[in-house]
Amino acid sequence: MLIPQTSTSLADCLRLRRQKLANLIKFPVILWSGTNSPRNFPANPFPFRANSHFLYFAGLPLPNAAIRLEGGKLELFMDDPSPSSTLWHGEMPTRNEIAQKIGADVARPMTELESWIEDAVTLAVQDAATWTQQSQLLNRWVLPQSPPQGIDLDLAKAIASIRLTHDEAALTELRKAAAVTVEAHKVGMAATPQAKLEAEVRAAMEGVIIAHNMTTSYNSIVTVHGEVLHNEHYHHPLQPGDLLLADVGAETEMGWAGDVTRTWPVSGKFSSTQRDIYNVVLAAHDACIAKIQPGVEYEDIHLLAATVIAEGLVELGIFQGNPQYLVEMDAHALFFPHGIGHLLGLDVHDMEDLGDLAGYEEGRKRSDRFGLSYLRLNRPLRPGMLVTIEPGFYQVPAILNDANVRSKYQNVVNWQRLSEFADVRGIRLEDDVLVTAEGSEVLTAALPNDADTIENLVGR
Amino acid sequence: MLIPQTSTSLADCLRLRRQKLANLIKFPVILWSGTNSPRNFPANPFPFRANSHFLYFAGLPLPNAAIRLEGGKLELFMDDPSPSSTLWHGEMPTRNEIAQKIGADVARPMTELESWIEDAVTLAVQDAATWTQQSQLLNRWVLPQSPPQGIDLDLAKAIASIRLTHDEAALTELRKAAAVTVEAHKVGMAATPQAKLEAEVRAAMEGVIIAHNMTTSYNSIVTVHGEVLHNEHYHHPLQPGDLLLADVGAETEMGWAGDVTRTWPVSGKFSSTQRDIYNVVLAAHDACIAKIQPGVEYEDIHLLAATVIAEGLVELGIFQGNPQYLVEMDAHALFFPHGIGHLLGLDVHDMEDLGDLAGYEEGRKRSDRFGLSYLRLNRPLRPGMLVTIEPGFYQVPAILNDANVRSKYQNVVNWQRLSEFADVRGIRLEDDVLVTAEGSEVLTAALPNDADTIENLVGR
Ligand SMILES: [Mn+2]
Ligand SMILES: [Mn+2]
Repeated sequence: MLIPQTSTSLADCLRLRRQKLANLIKFPVILWSGTNSPRNFPANPFPFRANSHFLYFAGLPLPNAAIRLEGGKLELFMDDPSPSSTLWHGEMPTRNEIAQKIGADVARPMTELESWIEDAVTLAVQDAATWTQQSQLLNRWVLPQSPPQGIDLDLAKAIASIRLTHDEAALTELRKAAAVTVEAHKVGMAATPQAKLEAEVRAAMEGVIIAHNMTTSYNSIVTVHGEVLHNEHYHHPLQPGDLLLADVGAETEMGWAGDVTRTWPVSGKFSSTQRDIYNVVLAAHDACIAKIQPGVEYEDIHLLAATVIAEGLVELGIFQGNPQYLVEMDAHALFFPHGIGHLLGLDVHDMEDLGDLAGYEEGRKRSDRFGLSYLRLNRPLRPGMLVTIEPGFYQVPAILNDANVRSKYQNVVNWQRLSEFADVRGIRLEDDVLVTAEGSEVLTAALPNDADTIENLVGR
Repeated sequence: MLIPQTSTSLADCLRLRRQKLANLIKFPVILWSGTNSPRNFPANPFPFRANSHFLYFAGLPLPNAAIRLEGGKLELFMDDPSPSSTLWHGEMPTRNEIAQKIGADVARPMTELESWIEDAVTLAVQDAATWTQQSQLLNRWVLPQSPPQGIDLDLAKAIASIRLTHDEAALTELRKAAAVTVEAHKVGMAATPQAKLEAEVRAAMEGVIIAHNMTTSYNSIVTVHGEVLHNEHYHHPLQPGDLLLADVGAETEMGWAGDVTRTWPVSGKFSSTQRDIYNVVLAAHDACIAKIQPGVEYEDIHLLAATVIAEGLVELGIFQGNPQYLVEMDAHALFFPHGIGHLLGLDVHDMEDLGDLAGYEEGRKRSDRFGLSYLRLNRPLRPGMLVTIEPGFYQVPAILNDANVRSKYQNVVNWQRLSEFADVRGIRLEDDVLVTAEGSEVLTAALPNDADTIENLVGR
């Protein structure tokens, strides 16, 4: 474990964060960092990823550690490296060195944690070794697959309210993630003319992330089949008429995420049908970002995207009818079947481990509507919130070939006209947008998104 | 899930494998594939890695599946993709299509598995969701952290004996892994002169692996601090006098692993001290490979490496005394504190999920000796076994600064002379070697290892 040198004091930032928590929660809070998850055998684990709530209040990705927060005080529980771990893993900072770095008031070995659990609340960590330990120590089930319950629910609500808007230290990290993500996309575009397979473009993009000593914040999507929304295959050959959709994001060493999507023509030149649809998606993207400001409902941003897409498809002759009416009957979801975006922070879908607790304003629930049910965020926007804006257009066979869907939307879709757009299987445009007092700031603005510039970046 | 087209029939290969198992085990065998492990929230998992025993007998990395083997018959249990999974993940092959591909006699939905568990033996899968399910269905603990017990132990022994030597289909995959691993190392060497950080060389190497649509078979080591044996940090700058140690391997889509280490000078030119030690390690490497043939004890290969290293260090004046005697007193382990290698197959330490069951001949146990305790393989070699040969030289502060160690070896080490080799912190050379009827075949022989050629590959 490397202790990074930060320009502003990590300890000061963490002190402010836990003061906010102390104002909301009177119980002692214990947060575990988690441990490695094994891959095919215990000594061959996946790379360690610390629990995000721990990271937020402890600041460093320490494996096998816990922190206890009470009344603004920070207690660190972790073991000093063993002599054999020094042999295999080198000299590591001691517990006391780390305690000093993060401004802990006390540092104790992990075995003492059991003496400090009375009345403590917690949140479940993802790996089984740790949630088992949490459950045993606290003598109640603490399960990552179930939403927080009882006294833990109050903690979840308090942390969600704090993490919902980002402080300066978080924004510094998020800007780093955004910058490397932007570079990865530029390199991906430039690598496309020489690439024969999706995997080769993925390699170029992830290479940038690895070279910056970062990781991907989620499994990359790099595909000529953008109509498969969560496509994690990379074996398809690139054909000259294809669009390549790349949804790739970097995560900093401290765990903060970027999340960007661009779609570009493999040949470096959009066909006229591809360009027409691309510009519809871009218009939705730009309209949404222009509307972002404090007080605006995120659901209204989503509906704005739906409306702009519907308008564009009416203009292209794919839809027929009044755009507002098309959105009311969820016709947009035929081609845009997901939400306009989500919270972004330490998690790519920030705090999704808490279910909809962070994404949905208290008292609100997911809609049953085909065109709204996938919306991950439904709150009024506030300064300091970071959200993605990611409209798209997809021709998903499972939707468009569904007999019920076809009959319901028989009269609003010009299927004949649609067939002329067969070379547009999937387009998505996604940026990371910070809500500011004045409106918004696009953290990933350095990555162009207009069709002409994209063509130039791909080269020929 | 893509069904790959293989040149020889996957079904025929799998039939032979399970016939071997049927000859050894009369109980029905159920093997689970496992499921995704969550990263920071359930919808953001690590990439899926199927259990290796499942992979060996089912041939494809199918998530959330199980196979039942009895008397040479294969029954596949998995669910057809749901309509919503088709929306998000695209058209997937059906259960019946997969059953045909792998030559299953029967294919059933996962819910029917509970009707087929009577008298079944199994091996634990690593992820908690699956081993919990295994334990519940079989009504006994099936835990990945504990060695197989009771009737499962017989299964473990049978599978270990089968997987210990590789069939042609396995070797085809292992040669693919070796070829991409070799290319990754060549690209890493070539990328070094332009790189400022370890992470940049790592990116170049892993980029090759990703571009071939493969994954790394373990977390890469790419470090100028080779003396830290399991160094998974990549943040150090590259300095002209540094040696860079890269232990990086590719794993094919079907799960078969490569595992190669090279050590090269960042400047493209070994210092004379670095070259001297490099040639000692290379001499040990070459002597070990020359000695490999059926019937030879792997422990003797290890001791040969120890002896060649001791001889070389005597010649350089670092050791004083008789090499044979130095090895008997474990002096070699001062600088070579790990084993000469391990089994390689579907796992980088093949079948290490079974503890030492595969690595150690029945009745043998790990030695207590400082110079032997880390040996992962202790069996007579047989044709078809794939092993690594990976001698090294390291100046590990935790060993060399230990007062007990220094006093024990006070008279055999010329500490003054040793101090002249301060620019050699860690060197390792590792290749993947197949035991053949005639002797051996180095699957990774296309990657040079002599000092001059390495210098040329690094370029200037
Ligand atoms: Mn997103
Ligand atoms: Mn190895």
